[in-house]
Amino acid sequence: MAGRRQSPGPRQSPGSQTSLRKRNQQRIVEALVKVGASTQADLARRTGLSTATISNIVSHMAENGLVSLTPTTASGRRATSVRLLSSNGTVAAGIGFGRRHLRVVLVYPDYTIVAEESIALPPKYDPRVGFDLARDLLGDLLERTGISWDALSGVGVGIPGSIDRRDVMPVIGTVWAEWAFVDVVVELEDRLGGIPVVLDNDANLGSVAETIWGPHGHVTNLVYLKVGSGIGAGLILNGMPFNGATGVTGEVGHVQVVADGQACRCGNRGCLEAEASITAMLDRLSAVTSITTTEELVAAAKAGDVAVIRVIEDAARMIGRVVGDLASILSPEIIVLGGPLAALGDTILEPISRAFARHVLPLVRDATEIVASTLDDRGEALGAAALVFHREAVRVL
Amino acid sequence: MAGRRQSPGPRQSPGSQTSLRKRNQQRIVEALVKVGASTQADLARRTGLSTATISNIVSHMAENGLVSLTPTTASGRRATSVRLLSSNGTVAAGIGFGRRHLRVVLVYPDYTIVAEESIALPPKYDPRVGFDLARDLLGDLLERTGISWDALSGVGVGIPGSIDRRDVMPVIGTVWAEWAFVDVVVELEDRLGGIPVVLDNDANLGSVAETIWGPHGHVTNLVYLKVGSGIGAGLILNGMPFNGATGVTGEVGHVQVVADGQACRCGNRGCLEAEASITAMLDRLSAVTSITTTEELVAAAKAGDVAVIRVIEDAARMIGRVVGDLASILSPEIIVLGGPLAALGDTILEPISRAFARHVLPLVRDATEIVASTLDDRGEALGAAALVFHREAVRVL
Repeated sequence: MAGRRQSPGPRQSPGSQTSLRKRNQQRIVEALVKVGASTQADLARRTGLSTATISNIVSHMAENGLVSLTPTTASGRRATSVRLLSSNGTVAAGIGFGRRHLRVVLVYPDYTIVAEESIALPPKYDPRVGFDLARDLLGDLLERTGISWDALSGVGVGIPGSIDRRDVMPVIGTVWAEWAFVDVVVELEDRLGGIPVVLDNDANLGSVAETIWGPHGHVTNLVYLKVGSGIGAGLILNGMPFNGATGVTGEVGHVQVVADGQACRCGNRGCLEAEASITAMLDRLSAVTSITTTEELVAAAKAGDVAVIRVIEDAARMIGRVVGDLASILSPEIIVLGGPLAALGDTILEPISRAFARHVLPLVRDATEIVASTLDDRGEALGAAALVFHREAVRVL
Repeated sequence: MAGRRQSPGPRQSPGSQTSLRKRNQQRIVEALVKVGASTQADLARRTGLSTATISNIVSHMAENGLVSLTPTTASGRRATSVRLLSSNGTVAAGIGFGRRHLRVVLVYPDYTIVAEESIALPPKYDPRVGFDLARDLLGDLLERTGISWDALSGVGVGIPGSIDRRDVMPVIGTVWAEWAFVDVVVELEDRLGGIPVVLDNDANLGSVAETIWGPHGHVTNLVYLKVGSGIGAGLILNGMPFNGATGVTGEVGHVQVVADGQACRCGNRGCLEAEASITAMLDRLSAVTSITTTEELVAAAKAGDVAVIRVIEDAARMIGRVVGDLASILSPEIIVLGGPLAALGDTILEPISRAFARHVLPLVRDATEIVASTLDDRGEALGAAALVFHREAVRVL
């Protein structure tokens, strides 16, 4: 124990050989999705990788059942044709439902992304309409990649609200009204012909995605803070997603920041979510601006609109204070800001960090990094796909 | 996953056969400590247990190297003499330093308590004087139980302040001034002839002790909230002590509850600890009462002193609010109140629970129990002893 400083976790750091190999494999898979079965020489040309690298990675993928290798001839010479495999259980799908969009991804067990796509949704859409669209989009992706439905080992789904793990239902008061009482797992399994569906909330899935696809693979304690129309955190503790007794964890949006403040949908008042979510920011701006959407808010902030920046800063101070309290409790290595405002970078990170530093225990402050997510709005769907393999792993254990 | 409700953890519930066996074994060990080597018939008389039970437990202990069984005669008949063993590595010692006392325990690897004892210390004692006294008290206990120094596999120590696990030093601002810059491990290993010493903070050790010696063995997520001259929480998450990136976790004492409130030793203001610790309560009462010690505070509350009860209730409301925020983040099964005020029962639990219910997310409120510890001031030393075996287990892995 003595003298130990930041022992590296089991995962490799971004610059490592493993990470490089993963990126190269990702490029090979993208090429195969784009043009279908290819020779190794074709893949080398398309990716710019050496034939030795291609051969090495492709052999490894074949051993793991991800591609088939078939002898063929090309330009009269012996060659090997590489084709994406779709044997049973090869691929997981992830579906992420946002407030105005829906994203579907296909992922291999080694977390290589096979394909991904998102579509816009109308405000306050009926989740059941969303499920239909998700099924169709998933079907499109499978067709485009030549992967059969049978190849799906499961489908992970993320929704913007907490899930009570005891009955696997959205928790009233943490989710938009349209999602209350919707049995997401049953509805989706019905539409997917019984393919097993696993469900979690968006912030939890974001935290999982950050440890796999973000540059934080070496971290064992990570907080993913999603600021959107609600505010919530996903927790990776001791290297594992943390779900507590109920599955309802990381609910920083329901920490009170203003005594007797705005009424919150959870039943309390002055919650962080009621005072500092994007919804609250837009409410506050409605008196003095014509801004009504998140996109307009982000654009105005980027353009330097002082009223918008002030409202964002005020919210950021409240967020930073609550995240400081959370860090005094959990002492994570890193806090990753996700959601649409992450794109604003320092405009929001700086006031969060200042308030954080003012409230957290000084020793923890110096040991905690606060950064913006680099996954844009992809974290939820990616994390959902990863969840499929995690659940399988848990079942095997 | 679906339909799962409170699946039992690996540990047994208090009423189980395992728990009964443990209690019986504890009684046998206490009898052996008291009178030394005894026949099984003697033990049956002294404990009231049946000879079959004695024989069964004693055989099991012998298999695990905890006792020796030697053929002998008693009243002219063949009998078996049972003697506590002290072969190398059989026993762990735990030392708990409080503000005004010091406790030492000896524990077997199966968590049977061999012996324990506490002594009073003067206010603001020099830790080095405490170390000398701890060594002497440990020596007394070993002598009394006939266990040799060589039998100690290690010594665990708890101090009332956070430990930075990266350099295993007390964290300035969370610990009393006397303990700042004191290298507890080195100081104690010097005095103990190189027996390995492991160190943790009191609240963390309390949480470990609750899962082993409290009635919460089935719980996988437990918060031990220690309210004393400071306020801190020990976290058991996913069945393991949680230490985060720095070891400084569960620092609910440094969550701000009063904007620009009392200055706190951590450098911030209005921290829970500065507003609601026993120190803060005594400060607040000093204007209107002659109460200056924790013992007087507890006695006055028990006697129904309205000013004292009001001050305790006001503090309890602040504590309940912060614990509500903590529960919205962690959703533990149970929150155990430790420290001297736990003895007040509902006088403090009720205002804590009311404020808790008002601030926590309703679903989490209904899934979280708040109870008083039943370990009095023993949790710290007991948890410290358990830590020795945990560390050994970690080393083996």
